Amino acid sequence: MHAPKSRNITWSHSAIKRSERAERNGHRSAILWFTGLSGSGKSTLSRHVEKALFERGFHTYILDGDNVRFGLCRDLGFSPESRTENIRRIGEVAKLMLDAGVIVLTAFISPYRTDRDVNRELVEDGDFIEIYTKCALKTCEDRDPKGLYKKARAGEIENFTGISAPYEEPLHPEIVIETDAHDVDRCVERIIAELTRLGIVPA
Amino acid sequence: MHAPKSRNITWSHSAIKRSERAERNGHRSAILWFTGLSGSGKSTLSRHVEKALFERGFHTYILDGDNVRFGLCRDLGFSPESRTENIRRIGEVAKLMLDAGVIVLTAFISPYRTDRDVNRELVEDGDFIEIYTKCALKTCEDRDPKGLYKKARAGEIENFTGISAPYEEPLHPEIVIETDAHDVDRCVERIIAELTRLGIVPA
Repeated sequence: MHAPKSRNITWSHSAIKRSERAERNGHRSAILWFTGLSGSGKSTLSRHVEKALFERGFHTYILDGDNVRFGLCRDLGFSPESRTENIRRIGEVAKLMLDAGVIVLTAFISPYRTDRDVNRELVEDGDFIEIYTKCALKTCEDRDPKGLYKKARAGEIENFTGISAPYEEPLHPEIVIETDAHDVDRCVERIIAELTRLGIVPA
Repeated sequence: MHAPKSRNITWSHSAIKRSERAERNGHRSAILWFTGLSGSGKSTLSRHVEKALFERGFHTYILDGDNVRFGLCRDLGFSPESRTENIRRIGEVAKLMLDAGVIVLTAFISPYRTDRDVNRELVEDGDFIEIYTKCALKTCEDRDPKGLYKKARAGEIENFTGISAPYEEPLHPEIVIETDAHDVDRCVERIIAELTRLGIVPA
């Protein structure tokens, strides 16, 4: 088909609505914002939760240090200002993925309450699910999966959350998971149950 | 089911592979990088191409000025350095969406060849499809959908591509669309045909 040549085309716009994507996917999208100390289980839990959701046929994605700190945020360090900018950018990317119909899981310490709340405000009520992986500092330090606490105690890492920088606990997180009290499967089960209760995931 | 309480959990990792997402979705993901002058039809064409892909059941998303410049990149202006950082961040977000299984369309002038090539290098061969919306400056200026050329000519906008800032044409774009020679439907048809030929979209 050859259409007529035209230099005065009506360049109209169209866009796919989020509701159309949700209908297609069979589930609504959401941001599952994991927050907690280093070693509290954010990364592990988010991966297991993603796997469980993916296996149910949902569209999912994880943003974590592995795919963000070396890419989008590779110009940022760990000063308070840089942490804030880091979390801001992640919030904006999560919002785009939310709009794209994805259940996006983020796994960052995100120690400042204000930064998390700013991201919550970016989206509509019910879109931002704050999941606090609550765990005693002592347990996190015993786990020390990356050897970071040891380095922080030795003064080799500055601004380390829990040691030389603050962690501000969530005041009203949608979900609290005590990762030093339950094993991974139980934690995942509880999160999925909460997501169902919140209407993110169909029962 | 109550699992035993444990303080020494094996916090193993798992992740969904891109190939698993592609299998689920029934199509591979890709970055469709539209580039061209203001008014050359990037935004309109990308929206129509997205609609066509979405209607075929594919997972799609558009990154454009509307959802990026006011969010992720709202701290950036239009100096050469800011433009480069703008395009860098968009490239990184597009890469994340690619990894999430999405056919992501980007619609930015992206005037510098180096910036586009940096983003091409971020991903694997065949993932980055550069689509040049080729259109005479005169035609773009006649269209002037946002009245920007008029302001640029009046000196009210600095660093305006094509007027007071350079546009570097792609040397080897995967697709060239002459938007002053064909209407929208014809352009969309050609792009979909090319995407099929390139193996992004099943025939």
